[in-house]
Amino acid sequence: MRIAIDAMGGDHSPDKIIQGAIESLEFLPSDDAIILVGPEELLREKLAAVMARYSNVHIEPASQVIGMDDSPVEAVRQKRDSSIVRMVKLAAAGKADAIISAGNTGALVAAGVLMLDALPGVERPGIAIPIPNGYNRVLLCDAGANVQPKAAHLHQYAILASVYSQTLYDVAAPRVGLLNIGTEEEKGTALVKETRLLLEKDGGLNFVGYIEGRDIFTDRCDVVITDGFTGNVVLKVIEGMGGSLLRTLKGQMAQLPAPSAAELAPIIKKTFNLYDHEEYGGALLLGVSGLFLKVHGSAGHKAIRNAVHAAKQATVHNINERISARLSERVA
Amino acid sequence: MRIAIDAMGGDHSPDKIIQGAIESLEFLPSDDAIILVGPEELLREKLAAVMARYSNVHIEPASQVIGMDDSPVEAVRQKRDSSIVRMVKLAAAGKADAIISAGNTGALVAAGVLMLDALPGVERPGIAIPIPNGYNRVLLCDAGANVQPKAAHLHQYAILASVYSQTLYDVAAPRVGLLNIGTEEEKGTALVKETRLLLEKDGGLNFVGYIEGRDIFTDRCDVVITDGFTGNVVLKVIEGMGGSLLRTLKGQMAQLPAPSAAELAPIIKKTFNLYDHEEYGGALLLGVSGLFLKVHGSAGHKAIRNAVHAAKQATVHNINERISARLSERVA
Repeated sequence: MRIAIDAMGGDHSPDKIIQGAIESLEFLPSDDAIILVGPEELLREKLAAVMARYSNVHIEPASQVIGMDDSPVEAVRQKRDSSIVRMVKLAAAGKADAIISAGNTGALVAAGVLMLDALPGVERPGIAIPIPNGYNRVLLCDAGANVQPKAAHLHQYAILASVYSQTLYDVAAPRVGLLNIGTEEEKGTALVKETRLLLEKDGGLNFVGYIEGRDIFTDRCDVVITDGFTGNVVLKVIEGMGGSLLRTLKGQMAQLPAPSAAELAPIIKKTFNLYDHEEYGGALLLGVSGLFLKVHGSAGHKAIRNAVHAAKQATVHNINERISARLSERVA
Repeated sequence: MRIAIDAMGGDHSPDKIIQGAIESLEFLPSDDAIILVGPEELLREKLAAVMARYSNVHIEPASQVIGMDDSPVEAVRQKRDSSIVRMVKLAAAGKADAIISAGNTGALVAAGVLMLDALPGVERPGIAIPIPNGYNRVLLCDAGANVQPKAAHLHQYAILASVYSQTLYDVAAPRVGLLNIGTEEEKGTALVKETRLLLEKDGGLNFVGYIEGRDIFTDRCDVVITDGFTGNVVLKVIEGMGGSLLRTLKGQMAQLPAPSAAELAPIIKKTFNLYDHEEYGGALLLGVSGLFLKVHGSAGHKAIRNAVHAAKQATVHNINERISARLSERVA
């Protein structure tokens, strides 16, 4: 397979992105290719040693960069030679089987939606994020692609995310929960109620009903379905709270005698890593042809390496063929 | 003023609740009254000595109790003689100026929304929850009263929550943030965009613009405005994540030698308490006639005494008159 990586996306580009890409070569078979997308001269310089050693590392030139604060749709339309647009073009032209970026999520999603074909039968692509919860992980979808979805879109996300959960995480029958503000039937918005009816009727899903925000952390489900507004807020609340708690705990530990603090530090690190979604490989754009992975803006080399690993897994298991089969099943 | 207290709510009812109520008599002027709500015989027995000494302590009989795990709306509808319903009825009938309970939050809010009149000019009451964030606290509103609000409702919540933040927490010019999925103008739902325009135009507010989920934990604002669906999900994600992290950390600590674990335990407890909104006095129902205070389920006598004090402060500072004045200002 051919994996294209946006060398210019995220806070730690290009160095950490390139480092993660290089580390991936350790586990990728030599007939898989890595294509780094970015300014040609810069990449030639940084990759000289690696390209001398590995013949499966390539450069796709892109002279522009879309910044984290650029207006997504405008940036995609205007910066035609940006690393994001060039990378997505590779996928659209069938020259990359998977694309990975830590860049501007909105621009990535806009580029994906504008330039990639949706899989047959998919109405709107959705973003899924694996959220570690101390037990395992739940796949939260939609995390921001579709802020005012229809019930039919959320139904499709349940199907798409279930196939991803089966394929990437080996969950045999992913439990699908619909995020709501209570578990009683009368609770929630009109959208949530309409979606529940669709999910209940779909015998191919393992729908467990309404779940609440706290159930993301109680091992009640493997897939959490919600609109892109709520999903995006939830994701950022989890990030914000984890970071804040960790800072406070470290501040408190500074009051301990040094030997005790040294003993405790690895335990605290280990625990918080269990809740860090960056450790789990970042976002997926579900429902497009080709595999599309968005890693977090502050992604380091580890997150890039994990994303390459996830892309490899998904391709080995023919994820998109399985989605198409599942969607045509429903029509038939 | 007359303050009604649910004697049967929370983990330490009735004894600690009654103790807190009695302690409040020390600072309340003798023309203020305390009304304890609960089973008549039980309260007569426990209050015999106090009532012989103070003429401003009264009993409101209520034979039933709504448990912490009861389904809120159902419990309020079925347990008409519960201490929660009887207490809210006192406020609805103008027989109590403030009500305080450590009981089932959902049932309290349901009773308040169903039974209390809105203040003049208030279109829909909203739930505000003070969320500790490691720095201070932010008042999150709406946390679930109004799941599909109009922009005008969210505008009112910004005003109501600002007055509460000024009055109860002494914040001179509370910074108001509008929860969104990005800070760029084009981000978000139609509701969020419409609300932003209203908040920007209101010169009486200290509006700081869009904030994201993670900003709840970055001291960017004192008041966070959102729809009741998103607000409720956010609240429960915070609860769920805090609880889950704490369990995991305790599990990890079990592997430590006993002396180190003993050293770490109080630090962990202190840190997580900093993020536990129950420690901060719980929910407020904004925009109803009468003052409505929910204290945490594990409230002891001190928390009850503090709540009585807060209710007194809010009344001394004419919180509801200030809200009415502020709302009519806008109309004029």
